[in-house]
Amino acid sequence: MIRLELRVELTYDVQDSNGADFVFNIHAAHTAHQTVVDESLVLEQPVTPDIGTDSATGTRFMRLHANPGPLRLTYAATVNLAHHRAEPDTLAEVPVRCLPLEVLPYVYPSRYCESDRLLNLAFNEFGSLWPGYSRVLAIQHWVQKHVTFASNTSNSNTSAVDTLIGQVGVCRDFTHLMIALCRALNIPARIASGTDYGADPALGPPAFHAYVEVYLGDRWYLFDASGTGIPMGFMRFGTGRDAADVAFATIFGNVVAGAPSVQVRAIEGAGLEVPHHCREALSTASASGSTASGHAALVRGVTGGTAQRNPVRQLPD
Amino acid sequence: MIRLELRVELTYDVQDSNGADFVFNIHAAHTAHQTVVDESLVLEQPVTPDIGTDSATGTRFMRLHANPGPLRLTYAATVNLAHHRAEPDTLAEVPVRCLPLEVLPYVYPSRYCESDRLLNLAFNEFGSLWPGYSRVLAIQHWVQKHVTFASNTSNSNTSAVDTLIGQVGVCRDFTHLMIALCRALNIPARIASGTDYGADPALGPPAFHAYVEVYLGDRWYLFDASGTGIPMGFMRFGTGRDAADVAFATIFGNVVAGAPSVQVRAIEGAGLEVPHHCREALSTASASGSTASGHAALVRGVTGGTAQRNPVRQLPD
Amino acid sequence: MIRLELRVELTYDVQDSNGADFVFNIHAAHTAHQTVVDESLVLEQPVTPDIGTDSATGTRFMRLHANPGPLRLTYAATVNLAHHRAEPDTLAEVPVRCLPLEVLPYVYPSRYCESDRLLNLAFNEFGSLWPGYSRVLAIQHWVQKHVTFASNTSNSNTSAVDTLIGQVGVCRDFTHLMIALCRALNIPARIASGTDYGADPALGPPAFHAYVEVYLGDRWYLFDASGTGIPMGFMRFGTGRDAADVAFATIFGNVVAGAPSVQVRAIEGAGLEVPHHCREALSTASASGSTASGHAALVRGVTGGTAQRNPVRQLPD
Amino acid sequence: MIRLELRVELTYDVQDSNGADFVFNIHAAHTAHQTVVDESLVLEQPVTPDIGTDSATGTRFMRLHANPGPLRLTYAATVNLAHHRAEPDTLAEVPVRCLPLEVLPYVYPSRYCESDRLLNLAFNEFGSLWPGYSRVLAIQHWVQKHVTFASNTSNSNTSAVDTLIGQVGVCRDFTHLMIALCRALNIPARIASGTDYGADPALGPPAFHAYVEVYLGDRWYLFDASGTGIPMGFMRFGTGRDAADVAFATIFGNVVAGAPSVQVRAIEGAGLEVPHHCREALSTASASGSTASGHAALVRGVTGGTAQRNPVRQLPD
Repeated sequence: MIRLELRVELTYDVQDSNGADFVFNIHAAHTAHQTVVDESLVLEQPVTPDIGTDSATGTRFMRLHANPGPLRLTYAATVNLAHHRAEPDTLAEVPVRCLPLEVLPYVYPSRYCESDRLLNLAFNEFGSLWPGYSRVLAIQHWVQKHVTFASNTSNSNTSAVDTLIGQVGVCRDFTHLMIALCRALNIPARIASGTDYGADPALGPPAFHAYVEVYLGDRWYLFDASGTGIPMGFMRFGTGRDAADVAFATIFGNVVAGAPSVQVRAIEGAGLEVPHHCREALSTASASGSTASGHAALVRGVTGGTAQRNPVRQLPD
Repeated sequence: MIRLELRVELTYDVQDSNGADFVFNIHAAHTAHQTVVDESLVLEQPVTPDIGTDSATGTRFMRLHANPGPLRLTYAATVNLAHHRAEPDTLAEVPVRCLPLEVLPYVYPSRYCESDRLLNLAFNEFGSLWPGYSRVLAIQHWVQKHVTFASNTSNSNTSAVDTLIGQVGVCRDFTHLMIALCRALNIPARIASGTDYGADPALGPPAFHAYVEVYLGDRWYLFDASGTGIPMGFMRFGTGRDAADVAFATIFGNVVAGAPSVQVRAIEGAGLEVPHHCREALSTASASGSTASGHAALVRGVTGGTAQRNPVRQLPD
Repeated sequence: MIRLELRVELTYDVQDSNGADFVFNIHAAHTAHQTVVDESLVLEQPVTPDIGTDSATGTRFMRLHANPGPLRLTYAATVNLAHHRAEPDTLAEVPVRCLPLEVLPYVYPSRYCESDRLLNLAFNEFGSLWPGYSRVLAIQHWVQKHVTFASNTSNSNTSAVDTLIGQVGVCRDFTHLMIALCRALNIPARIASGTDYGADPALGPPAFHAYVEVYLGDRWYLFDASGTGIPMGFMRFGTGRDAADVAFATIFGNVVAGAPSVQVRAIEGAGLEVPHHCREALSTASASGSTASGHAALVRGVTGGTAQRNPVRQLPD
Repeated sequence: MIRLELRVELTYDVQDSNGADFVFNIHAAHTAHQTVVDESLVLEQPVTPDIGTDSATGTRFMRLHANPGPLRLTYAATVNLAHHRAEPDTLAEVPVRCLPLEVLPYVYPSRYCESDRLLNLAFNEFGSLWPGYSRVLAIQHWVQKHVTFASNTSNSNTSAVDTLIGQVGVCRDFTHLMIALCRALNIPARIASGTDYGADPALGPPAFHAYVEVYLGDRWYLFDASGTGIPMGFMRFGTGRDAADVAFATIFGNVVAGAPSVQVRAIEGAGLEVPHHCREALSTASASGSTASGHAALVRGVTGGTAQRNPVRQLPD
């Protein structure tokens, strides 16, 4: 088991005389394999936040209306991670017709992951590889080979296609490109946001991190598209189709933001591991959908190794 | 009450010797205000489809593996529509911090609705209008004024930005542009797919239709971005962030598709209305989220008429 | 006559041990109506620049190889401007088949002016206006109404389409959008770079300026797309299809650039006017092409007021 | 020497009651190495075309105003090609500061060749290769490896970036991508239009062809980006920055175009070669600029093998 201590400090100056609205996603998610041992939130304004939990993913959103003036927010948590671990070789891709319904949206293109434009490229580069975990890993390595990490090289308009063309970006951009390539092969993939652990200090101080979750077998597995962190040390805040869904803060009103401070520490002790690279596949999600009899029936007919090119969508006019 | 009779015929030639997978969304959705009186499905191949229902929206997906050779599918349904109707003047925009959590994703940009790129334009054109139903209607009229309907002028790459630039498109393109402009103003908007009724025959034979649902007050209301149909006659199949989510068929494998045939008839009789244009706001969705005490508390502080410009998203690196 | 004194200072630090190559376009152009009275160039490195003049436009390019270390360049010039002036009402648009050959490329789309994507928009907005100077002015005013000036809102990737969507930019972006709209109506338009005079100090210190030249009647006339300067005070360095052609410096090698310093002063005295806004059309170019008998013959058949929509290009496969 | 006989037939139906304007570029260019032995033009309408020659490139444009009704145009020519041939190993890349001024625009990005967006990619893929003819050939082979030829997969909006992403296209698209990659490395490259010879009949009947000319040493050399033809058999009509400049017909007015017919035949006989693949570099252009003393002086300092990354352009605001 991994135990992480997190401390996040966010500072803002609300310059709007009407105050401003905030939507935060900075709470550690509640999942089958990620448990919040204790946590605290300090808001240096007399405001009552509204905290809601998305039942499907365990993502927590905090929303509040802040008054004019400084707003300081400190979130601290101790979190246990007892990953589901799987042998990579056992993790198969799931045909679209057998996916749990709630997973289906993650094979569709999204704002920053225009998989529909990468069908040929994905097929040419990865179409002949054996489906499964190893093919997803091949996609990750391809992204790492073609994109160079560099701070401040992208912005909130930058999409997977832009990154593919420009060959430079931050974790978020690596993540978007890897997701888009997976989806172009009909492999469900989503973004996860949270914190990393063990990142190369040369890439800057610890910060919020974006990484990839890919649906294989019966659940979502972790991949670090940028290769800058140690997946076993990722604490999950939220998941979504792409970065549009997992901003750690969305701000409505005239607000100046300070640089966020993020500190993560791995606790050592009896029964506790320190995050390290490992060859097993890791997941913080529970198994989903596979017990439905209909799906089970369908899965029986599935044969591996057949690349299906070019899903055709018939759209309403 | 409206009663519609629908008959859809889809034909395919599966040319792949391994057969092909299909995901269909051609079943009338089950909603609080749309009831399926009876329905039938005929598949001219000995295949067992898997039909799943998305619990959040009532959308039904049918998935199947078809054998090589012709595949003909006939779906017929009789559907009752007893719309929720509301006085337009009473329908307010809901601040993002007060939206039901499940509505939140619909203010984010998506593949075909790049609202993040239209913040200035939306603010310049609509920022000074009084928030609420009438502002959404102003957006619809603006889209109709700037875009010309013309068949075969767009494809599955065409996004709201493309339509804004090119000023031409089909229903789907009008829909994407209207959605993007709403979201740029923080108004939740989504696409709905289904069938229309009463469309100008000059625009072609009856076909699958794409239209807009906007979240106002406590639920989703109908808008017809292209102005080609009569909203009261829309039968809903599915909803989603944009057309990527609501293809009526997604096909995996080497398949040639015939032209779909869609027939809709309004039944006349005692207690039955024929769809007609009306000034009231119409919804086929149930109220959502507003009873949660947290939200209610938050809503109390909301003041109308304040345009909040430029939501700023802080994304993970 | 206008007499302007210009002083430009550019500073660089060449950090490449092999030195670096530079292509400058900071010399006042030699044209029929812009005369360089005197000029001086000081290069604080012992390098011999190569200065070439493009015979078609009078644009001068200076190229040099700089050594490692600081490079300071001071260019000063006194320039007389005796504009060709014309009555706006007399300036007609020229049908493409009658344009001088060398003007033809300026109706084609270019990197930052994707006129091919704006055909419908240009036709819808301006197609019914009477062709000529007043229509071009209507385009300029439309651009000014839809785009807001703001520093640091665009970069070297930003095109006319981006500016149309984003509705914000600097002079260069206004210029690109106005050019693209003109070309979409088959009106030749090009970018001019140089310096402005009389710009609102609120927009920042005097700097290099980008503006528009449109071919009407028998020559190129000045338009200030951003409306920030006084066209009579523009000194021309270069012209081109768009900003890709008129960088004031293009740098090859590892170089850090300082902020450029630009000073312009209008000399007062006998026979000298100070630049001011005027209703006449101004040009610093000479008449071109119209005397060719072939063209004259063709022009005779031209009728005004007919908007020709949608030029169709048949491209080689 | 090569002798080619060309016969082109174009048919149109002018449906505009005012007639329509045409700009054609279907005449064989006059160059130092391409001689028109005889030619004929038959226009089946009583119209007088205006034929102009661009002095810099020898490209000929024919412009005319056609009356309503059918327009048939037959152009036939016999053309001699006595290529300038060079040993590939002797052809060096020319530093930008040493290029003839008229060549400079061909290192800039253009509408369909967004080289400015491909700097990193070009540097990563080709930056370490020895500059010169062999590096350009490596670019050509890379394009051929990554793009698949397929008819009707692109349109007049498709750019090099689109082709790089989509990995499919026609000759024009291969051409644009190869040009963009060359320019990203500061190698001047332009499009040439004309006819090919010896193309694989599987790719369709003989048609107009687009190919690449790259400036190496002291002139423009031929490359066939799509690898579908035999460069020795290319007859040149026009050259330009990209396809925007070399439409074989640009049509203003309501016109329906028939499919063009293109026939090319190589004449055999004494002293005549039939076009064939060869290892030498071929050019139909004359040497340019290299005799200017200034350039010669500059060229002396040039050292090969140094990749200069990321030209930085300082643009006017």
